[in-house]
Amino acid sequence: MNGAPAAMDPIRRLCVIGVGLIGGSLARALRAAGHCGEIVGCGRGLHNLQRAVELGVIDRFETDPAVAARGADMVVLSVPLGAFRSVFAALLNHLADDAVVTDAGSAKQCVVDDVRSVFGMIPPFFVPGHPISGTEQSGVDASFAELFQGRRVILTPLAETSGHAHGRVQTMWTRAGADVVDMGVRHHDEVLAATSHLPHVLAYSLVDTLARMDDRAEIFRYAAGGFRDFTRIASSDPVMWRDICLANREPVVAALDAFGQNLGLLADAIREGDGERVLSVFEHSKRSRDNLYRE
Amino acid sequence: MNGAPAAMDPIRRLCVIGVGLIGGSLARALRAAGHCGEIVGCGRGLHNLQRAVELGVIDRFETDPAVAARGADMVVLSVPLGAFRSVFAALLNHLADDAVVTDAGSAKQCVVDDVRSVFGMIPPFFVPGHPISGTEQSGVDASFAELFQGRRVILTPLAETSGHAHGRVQTMWTRAGADVVDMGVRHHDEVLAATSHLPHVLAYSLVDTLARMDDRAEIFRYAAGGFRDFTRIASSDPVMWRDICLANREPVVAALDAFGQNLGLLADAIREGDGERVLSVFEHSKRSRDNLYRE
Repeated sequence: MNGAPAAMDPIRRLCVIGVGLIGGSLARALRAAGHCGEIVGCGRGLHNLQRAVELGVIDRFETDPAVAARGADMVVLSVPLGAFRSVFAALLNHLADDAVVTDAGSAKQCVVDDVRSVFGMIPPFFVPGHPISGTEQSGVDASFAELFQGRRVILTPLAETSGHAHGRVQTMWTRAGADVVDMGVRHHDEVLAATSHLPHVLAYSLVDTLARMDDRAEIFRYAAGGFRDFTRIASSDPVMWRDICLANREPVVAALDAFGQNLGLLADAIREGDGERVLSVFEHSKRSRDNLYRE
Repeated sequence: MNGAPAAMDPIRRLCVIGVGLIGGSLARALRAAGHCGEIVGCGRGLHNLQRAVELGVIDRFETDPAVAARGADMVVLSVPLGAFRSVFAALLNHLADDAVVTDAGSAKQCVVDDVRSVFGMIPPFFVPGHPISGTEQSGVDASFAELFQGRRVILTPLAETSGHAHGRVQTMWTRAGADVVDMGVRHHDEVLAATSHLPHVLAYSLVDTLARMDDRAEIFRYAAGGFRDFTRIASSDPVMWRDICLANREPVVAALDAFGQNLGLLADAIREGDGERVLSVFEHSKRSRDNLYRE
């Protein structure tokens, strides 16, 4: 790599494709950390990009990924998973020699499949990644520099991934405040299906179920604080979550099946008035969660 | 009613049976509002009762409901639903002439059945009630005077309920800061099954499902902010919630069935890669929730 920046060097020009909650927050965090020079945004929503410039999140924007990535030594994809393939296709043959490419997609096998099918191989400069953070908000207005502070970022480097690219991406997320860990692609997708994708599907389905009931006006009127927290993630971006569910289909369906089966047993216990069985599930659950969030 | 207090009069002696989050918060709120004289607590956990005295939530306590209710013009049951019948039995023939009795149970038909079976009738002095508030915390240490501020309390008075008792209970909750509304027993139980009991069962079942997976350590390690909010209610008191599920069994099972069916359709859509159907559910859900919490 002739003259390529070392792993710890600041980013010369960052190209963020998809300047939403994640992309915008990463740009803000790296700017605040003094870890990058110019920041070029790219996306399809002109209004959002203009707003990103106004907010000082990006220096300028382009709507064509090929133009946006010109001369960038770090390119981050933070668009819905359904858009990855077309972004990769646009980037093909337009990346700088020293460009490292990474992403913030919530599922990783689909991203690896997309990059392989577009590039005909796993490019050594590509490091699949996933910051475990976010809120139900979306768009650049929701972004903030502290989003990744103390949060985990999972990288799923492949055999083909260069150590240099891996190091550059590790440094970037570390400078953004995150704890970076490596994981296998398949393992990532299964863990996230259980812990993130499944709860989103349940929250969406619950609100949808209630909103279809004849009584819905009354039902929503008497929703208490617990309901607000429980359904918060049902206010997340529907397109992003549709893409996640389809892209990570197999693990998501497996998690849904496991949940459905377990819920069915619990419903049976309630139906049969089996208080002992109901209590044991509730106690096991409370114990597990309390252990998880014991401060 | 010879010399009985008028609907708007302060409570002379309040007897709170079950000095936990709800009972303790009610005592604190009424004290703060100057709406009651002496407050007598009752319960089975001696430590909790002593703590309630230390905190100034109650003036003194008794462990026998019959003794605790002596001379009280307002008796509030805020124990798990499974304990109602034995408390009613203990109170029988030990209530003051001017006593009004109400409760804070999360289901109402079961309470009405219990009171009827113990008293042989619906006593005119009994007003079934349910404050729509609470947190995942329990015990008197979690109680606070502002818990009911701006929250709704649903009363489900029956044909037999005296207007005087109804008025006394309305005044009590209003003075505690709540908005009081009336509703039919059956309607209450169906609405709450959908909006409160169903989400609790789902949260418990989700955490239980994940905690049974081989990968559970990893799964919980990578749980993000959304998971914490989504599962908060799974840290609620298991005994209280077992009792609610069994006491309100029929509406809870009906809500679970409706949810299970809807979730099954969504799972099919994901399995089949039907993005349009998945997106329409997610969009409908987001729209419904955003409307609900539009500030």
